[in-house]
Amino acid sequence: MSSLPVPREPLRRVAVTGGTHGNEMCGIYLIRHWLQAPGELKRPSFSAMPVLANPAATAACRRYMDRDLNRTFTLTFLGSTDTPNGPYEVTRAQELNQLLGPKGTDQAFDFILDLHNTTANTGVCLISEASHSSFNLHLCRYLQLQNPGLPCRLFQYDISGKETYSVESVSKDGICLEMGPQPQGVLRADLFSQMRNLVASILDFIELFNQGMAFPAFEMDIYRNLGSVDFPRTADGDLIGTVHPQLQDHDFEPLRPGEPIFKLFSGEDVLYEGNSIVYPVFINEAAYYEKHVAFLKSERIRVSVPALPGLTSSSTLAP
Amino acid sequence: MSSLPVPREPLRRVAVTGGTHGNEMCGIYLIRHWLQAPGELKRPSFSAMPVLANPAATAACRRYMDRDLNRTFTLTFLGSTDTPNGPYEVTRAQELNQLLGPKGTDQAFDFILDLHNTTANTGVCLISEASHSSFNLHLCRYLQLQNPGLPCRLFQYDISGKETYSVESVSKDGICLEMGPQPQGVLRADLFSQMRNLVASILDFIELFNQGMAFPAFEMDIYRNLGSVDFPRTADGDLIGTVHPQLQDHDFEPLRPGEPIFKLFSGEDVLYEGNSIVYPVFINEAAYYEKHVAFLKSERIRVSVPALPGLTSSSTLAP
Repeated sequence: MSSLPVPREPLRRVAVTGGTHGNEMCGIYLIRHWLQAPGELKRPSFSAMPVLANPAATAACRRYMDRDLNRTFTLTFLGSTDTPNGPYEVTRAQELNQLLGPKGTDQAFDFILDLHNTTANTGVCLISEASHSSFNLHLCRYLQLQNPGLPCRLFQYDISGKETYSVESVSKDGICLEMGPQPQGVLRADLFSQMRNLVASILDFIELFNQGMAFPAFEMDIYRNLGSVDFPRTADGDLIGTVHPQLQDHDFEPLRPGEPIFKLFSGEDVLYEGNSIVYPVFINEAAYYEKHVAFLKSERIRVSVPALPGLTSSSTLAP
Repeated sequence: MSSLPVPREPLRRVAVTGGTHGNEMCGIYLIRHWLQAPGELKRPSFSAMPVLANPAATAACRRYMDRDLNRTFTLTFLGSTDTPNGPYEVTRAQELNQLLGPKGTDQAFDFILDLHNTTANTGVCLISEASHSSFNLHLCRYLQLQNPGLPCRLFQYDISGKETYSVESVSKDGICLEMGPQPQGVLRADLFSQMRNLVASILDFIELFNQGMAFPAFEMDIYRNLGSVDFPRTADGDLIGTVHPQLQDHDFEPLRPGEPIFKLFSGEDVLYEGNSIVYPVFINEAAYYEKHVAFLKSERIRVSVPALPGLTSSSTLAP
């Protein structure tokens, strides 16, 4: 993985976004809190900017108003002609692109940390594009070392051949922090506190990097997306079953060929017919029913992550 | 409690409603299944009618479109002039009142069983108006005896002095079956299966009653609503904290004066300042944020329930 790019300058323009989905409450209330009290986001070399990404959906306590904002940061949407009656999220993506981008330009923010919750039992999960992963793998490793009791996994998706679309794709580097399980529209104090602590650790990591610290090579297991599995449905699209109790809540645990994945309303079990062990993630996430996703399959792979070299002093001393 | 009325005729016109809230998935998918395969709802003396109560909200996977349907069955709404641009749920309540009522008349259904889910850790909870409670207490007792491993509690609210408003208030008798925790928009196979079994037991109980069985007197603990407690908020209504981790998920467990109920974002704890032990219920239910309810307080009381006399043979033999 040594060919992956890593930042060669301090990350000074950092944003923390929450409420990208308007019913994922930890990020929403953290951002609202930080907008009033931004001190927690300050570090000696930078101050992260809190951004409530989707205010209309947040006010309505819905994932989105017209379309999923976190699928809207493509050049097609970002460059579309602004019409007053167009989808709200297209307009909002363009506003965020002006604030944090423009995407793909030197003016773009250095790093966006986007905060999410899921109804799935993922624990702490960092989601990273493969192209971002070397820096992000060090970040994940740092969180693991800082929080030895807290499972903190990295889920990597490969966008190669397709255009990136997430809010953090607007910045030069970025990552998504997912935490679950938490129902939509509910703010759990335990997850709120954990997310707050993890954001602090992530900002600390960026600060250490900015100060010139080098991070040694290491090996770690990551989970690489292999695609999705839909619920069992009728030809008309109606569900005829749901996630099997033996799979429910078992995110990141091995699923072997022949093990049950769905329980039909008729009582029958549907078994996993793959040829090898996979690691299901985002099992029974509420927002994914409409996307025809009952869970994502991933493979667990061991990666050797090269050292992250320290910035040269000329970089770290730059104003 | 011997003064409470009990049915003196078989309950022949029984409805099971689900999707009264369009994102509470167990009832929605049970009703959809029974609409295709109604055999499960048949008993020798009656066939319960499955009704998807709020089809528009169900299609949108939202609690409601314009207003909470389960607060709309008042005579004011049921009697309001039908306007095409009025709230959807007012029109729908009027339709359901035609189908299952009219409320307060001899033509009304004998019994409505309304199926709900909550994000709170309630387990199995029957919700009953105090005026319905003698028959419903026997029903709850039957479920407890049929399902010894499953906590099944009765939560009683007193509507005295106010007008009833729930869907089951349209019928002569009725009860609401709540099960949690389940996130909005998620269908868990374990809760789906439990709810299905409980509905079968409830119909079995009605069948036994219809056949003339008498049920002996007993004593049981029930939980009586004492009112709600709101989240801590600013003067503008914004949350400044959420349910304390020591209270979260502890529905139906004793809360003592001086114990924490909220964790503020500032880190401070808010303590319960009441004078006596209460039993919180519906702790951190997603749909109650907008109703300014963090949890309901209840008192646990021991009630002596008189025997439910068997119907006379002339009643049970009626066609």
